[in-house]
Amino acid sequence: MAAVNRQWILKRRPVGDIQAGDLELVETPVPKPGAGEFLARTIYLSLDPTNRIWMSDMEQYMPPVQIGEVMRGGTLSVVEQSNNPHFRPGDIVTGLAGWQDYAVLSGGSKNPKGIVPLTAYMSVLGATGATAYFGLLDVGRPNPGETVVVSAAAGAVGSIVGQIAKLKGCHVVGIAGSDAKCRHVVEDFGFDACINYKKENVSAALKRECPKGIDVDFENAGGTILDAVLAQINLKGRVALCGLISGYNAKEPQPGPQHFANVLMKRARIEGFIIIDYLPRFGEFAADMSKWLAEGKIKYDVHIVKGMENALSALDLLFTGGNTGKLLVQAADEP
Amino acid sequence: MAAVNRQWILKRRPVGDIQAGDLELVETPVPKPGAGEFLARTIYLSLDPTNRIWMSDMEQYMPPVQIGEVMRGGTLSVVEQSNNPHFRPGDIVTGLAGWQDYAVLSGGSKNPKGIVPLTAYMSVLGATGATAYFGLLDVGRPNPGETVVVSAAAGAVGSIVGQIAKLKGCHVVGIAGSDAKCRHVVEDFGFDACINYKKENVSAALKRECPKGIDVDFENAGGTILDAVLAQINLKGRVALCGLISGYNAKEPQPGPQHFANVLMKRARIEGFIIIDYLPRFGEFAADMSKWLAEGKIKYDVHIVKGMENALSALDLLFTGGNTGKLLVQAADEP
Repeated sequence: MAAVNRQWILKRRPVGDIQAGDLELVETPVPKPGAGEFLARTIYLSLDPTNRIWMSDMEQYMPPVQIGEVMRGGTLSVVEQSNNPHFRPGDIVTGLAGWQDYAVLSGGSKNPKGIVPLTAYMSVLGATGATAYFGLLDVGRPNPGETVVVSAAAGAVGSIVGQIAKLKGCHVVGIAGSDAKCRHVVEDFGFDACINYKKENVSAALKRECPKGIDVDFENAGGTILDAVLAQINLKGRVALCGLISGYNAKEPQPGPQHFANVLMKRARIEGFIIIDYLPRFGEFAADMSKWLAEGKIKYDVHIVKGMENALSALDLLFTGGNTGKLLVQAADEP
Repeated sequence: MAAVNRQWILKRRPVGDIQAGDLELVETPVPKPGAGEFLARTIYLSLDPTNRIWMSDMEQYMPPVQIGEVMRGGTLSVVEQSNNPHFRPGDIVTGLAGWQDYAVLSGGSKNPKGIVPLTAYMSVLGATGATAYFGLLDVGRPNPGETVVVSAAAGAVGSIVGQIAKLKGCHVVGIAGSDAKCRHVVEDFGFDACINYKKENVSAALKRECPKGIDVDFENAGGTILDAVLAQINLKGRVALCGLISGYNAKEPQPGPQHFANVLMKRARIEGFIIIDYLPRFGEFAADMSKWLAEGKIKYDVHIVKGMENALSALDLLFTGGNTGKLLVQAADEP
């Protein structure tokens, strides 16, 4: 066991892009579990666009991380010592242990070993997959034959959204940030088409690829991509609003979507959602997704950066489009 | 019978505010009904914000009125001659006979005489009341104890929305454009409070009047009023998007709502609706509203301007806030 616990501490709230010094990596003693608690060593740390929101004090869906606190983050850990009869050394636990090598916890979700790769619990079978599943099916509600647009299509969530939409019989058009990502989205994830928003005019490309208009938009990006989608939304179209990553690093308030009047004219629905609201229904997702995985119907990518010390620089990949698939920091070897 | 039929013809699409010459009042012969048709004389013409949309070629929910056509409009007419066994002379028919003294029709909704004032069919028991009813209850879905905000609260729709919300046990805050309207909204329609947006800072006033935040917004205005509402929307809040009158006369595309990111952060829902989608469910509305009217639980205002020749100038009242309640042109005496 390492003698120290390395923790990423939020030192000040970033303004615009995250700067060196906004978070600091400090060393502290490995904590000791008290009664009912256990010591968990982080194996994988999940990096997500929402981390940037948590660093800010903008209006948000969980309390912001406070200055001086360990940065919040989703984790997969192995139990090393336990004073809790429900968690035994060697157990694999997912939760929110944060950006640190060790954490003392009193609970978490236990995950069986040996069935799927451990990284699956941090991606397709975890919050990422559940976000795709409930966001598309419960908020977007696509019908067979409808057209579904997915932004950040090569991303962890988007790639799964598109595959589920294909399973439901939809025409699926992705939007991604490079030709290589677009090829991946079409050739490996089976989307019908993918638009490289850095190269093509998105409005014109959507017109070409969505000849029947857009029925469902699974929105991860916001900004000009959402503008283009709203201009071509169909009657009774639905926007499942999952993320607005284009604005997370902005210093100024972002303008609202253009063509907003179309929400009225087309009797459309824009609805935000957060996966934590669906925790009581996680079983529905786990049953379907496990089955699809076993049948080989869903593929997923994991992009691993090694070393807790690289967490902050790795986070930047999400905003520059440098990752493909679920971005994880591997803080320790798998047990 | 007058020898001529006066018709308002759309001559060109207005740019910004409607200008003299955009529509022209012409005289034509009174038309003759053919087989299965009847001649209807317009008694009341409904003036609605959406008329301005129909004059434009913006993306909209019905085909725009074409240049050279009679302006579209909701009407209550009396049958004068009939070659249709279902419509007898003297029958009262509501429909879309347009901005003209006479129209040849082949159908419409018949309304009984002598139960309520005829103007009720053009307001509280017509599309106006149904818009309030379905927009609030089916789209906004307020729960008892929740806070409901209604813009254009002294208007034909808004005044009814607030009364239904009170019947459902909500805390109801209106927004209107004068102190007199605000007094009317509180004293006569029973809203808990009303904000004069021309005098007060709407954000500050909403904070004061909605101490528990905003659960449902029945949106008629858009623009800065919607901006202020979205900034204070509650978790799982709902915006029933009925109208965006603040932008209908704009020459430039209007910016999207500020604080749009709150739709994500608060998992809110913005949903546009149009009453024509609810025609199959009109019976639900008619049953409830007739009962409430009979019990004296719903009040409504009708603002009548006499003379078909005054239709165009009267329409302007909707955009200047010059009317209180349902705006009608009376084209002929009631039979």
